[in-house]
Amino acid sequence: MSEFTRRNFIATSTLMAAALANRPAEASAPTASKQGPGVYRYKIGSYQLTALYDGTWFRKIDDKFVRNATSALVDKALTDSFLPPGIVPTSFTPLLINTGAKLILIDTGTAGQLAPTTGLLADSFATAGIDPKSIDTILISHFHPDHINGIKDKDGKKVFPNAEILVPEPEWAYWMDDSKMRTAPAEMRPMFLNVRRIFADIAKDVKRYAPGNMVASGITSIAAYGHTPGHTAFAITSGNESMLVLSDVTNHPWLFARHPEWQGIFDMDANLAVTTRRRLLDRAVADKMLVAGYHFPFPASGHIVKAGSGYDLVPVMWQPL
Amino acid sequence: MSEFTRRNFIATSTLMAAALANRPAEASAPTASKQGPGVYRYKIGSYQLTALYDGTWFRKIDDKFVRNATSALVDKALTDSFLPPGIVPTSFTPLLINTGAKLILIDTGTAGQLAPTTGLLADSFATAGIDPKSIDTILISHFHPDHINGIKDKDGKKVFPNAEILVPEPEWAYWMDDSKMRTAPAEMRPMFLNVRRIFADIAKDVKRYAPGNMVASGITSIAAYGHTPGHTAFAITSGNESMLVLSDVTNHPWLFARHPEWQGIFDMDANLAVTTRRRLLDRAVADKMLVAGYHFPFPASGHIVKAGSGYDLVPVMWQPL
Repeated sequence: MSEFTRRNFIATSTLMAAALANRPAEASAPTASKQGPGVYRYKIGSYQLTALYDGTWFRKIDDKFVRNATSALVDKALTDSFLPPGIVPTSFTPLLINTGAKLILIDTGTAGQLAPTTGLLADSFATAGIDPKSIDTILISHFHPDHINGIKDKDGKKVFPNAEILVPEPEWAYWMDDSKMRTAPAEMRPMFLNVRRIFADIAKDVKRYAPGNMVASGITSIAAYGHTPGHTAFAITSGNESMLVLSDVTNHPWLFARHPEWQGIFDMDANLAVTTRRRLLDRAVADKMLVAGYHFPFPASGHIVKAGSGYDLVPVMWQPL
Repeated sequence: MSEFTRRNFIATSTLMAAALANRPAEASAPTASKQGPGVYRYKIGSYQLTALYDGTWFRKIDDKFVRNATSALVDKALTDSFLPPGIVPTSFTPLLINTGAKLILIDTGTAGQLAPTTGLLADSFATAGIDPKSIDTILISHFHPDHINGIKDKDGKKVFPNAEILVPEPEWAYWMDDSKMRTAPAEMRPMFLNVRRIFADIAKDVKRYAPGNMVASGITSIAAYGHTPGHTAFAITSGNESMLVLSDVTNHPWLFARHPEWQGIFDMDANLAVTTRRRLLDRAVADKMLVAGYHFPFPASGHIVKAGSGYDLVPVMWQPL
């Protein structure tokens, strides 16, 4: 056998391709234009959970993306994970919980408004065989656009018309306060306006919960402030099993779990966000809890382990039901 | 906020469940009985690859599973990865390559004959929108049942009737040799018989290749002996991209990449298998090549990094096309 190296393969392949250049044959199946469906199911006690992929935003970053790390360090974290530098592939995975009595959706995706490679949630619902009309409850973790935009379609119509919508009280208090909008930095104004676009005309139907309380059968909200003023995580418990839904406590785990002290540009109170991150990740480690992370690589769940001065995600292993 | 611990969640949830015990409501969607489809697409140059999940065999292991490690050590490797002890979740993921001119399938799955949680390949083909009749070429890595059984259905009919079947010459020479069958340990006899069940009546149509040569446009076979006498890996190259298909060089990476010296019961020449494993994993590390592993957790590809005295898999991050 000749020595196999990447270089040899490519040299041989180029020769072969030249030899075949005039060949007219075509494979009897065309190249597919879409990724396979992003639907992954698992159980917590008697509850069935379904991770529903909404897509990935290939976010171009500059040296402001992490306030307290150079872009060279961020790029190294990306390339060490075999990702290209300068781009953070930020994925979005709302989580559906079927308690047997209720269908509960945590966060609602981007409605395709962040990038052409997002907005797959409707496809994922279809693959899962779930009609959005059958959702009973929507739990919102916080008011960033990638979590609330999916409440409405592009025409402003409710995507989940029969769902009661539950939002964190301190999140509502902050974003719906016109004086906060007036005094916030100018670049935050679109986010305030977006919150109004989603909630203003349905305000009377939106229920506000105080983080720390049970918000649905088996689902407890957990104050996880810092990322936003009312950012909320959740614990889901059924039988003697439980899991921790981290929401945006940690953005991409290969950056912010490994470097929990990094202050992402999206963390509004960066110091509090770091404290919250360590508190919840330490809890996940201590209790060996399964966790879900909204921006974790699909299927967006796994376990947290200590690794060096930070943490690492051990992704769930894809299994049949 | 009250302290959140796993114990508190469960206690609260039990109270809540008792309170709701008489509640008659049911969610408007039933619990799903199947996992989401296991279809994942990616590109190597102009080639489109599709990982097609065939299921997972929850293999109960005893202290003979690894010849040179105690079951306590194997169990620790499992529980360190948050898997239950005593069971190796062995998944099967054939790989489809659309070169633009040909549809090539590497290995064919279990035909559902290993466990009720296997045999999903036909579903995965359907989800991918590919008719098995359109497969042009089947490349077989070796003759273990989970790689060849999918060539035929339960009635002995060819599943891929229009595909030419290419197998490693030394693999054919070993398993089709009746004298080898007679002198092999009794427990190997069913495997010899299974090879005959699959190949005897189609022998004239089976082409044998010498590992080390190009077997299809852009696909080079690589002798990777040890797991079986003719076990073969592959390199796939298109444009200036290439990847390494490890076949069974490494079984579950959380066991055998992390502990490359472990001699699994399935490795026929265990010393040679260990040497081959280190040789190919070292190559993957040196060239930073994307790899696929037939028994890696779906979508069964990623990159290999050095970790301690062994290696670790950095799984691919699920992305849109």
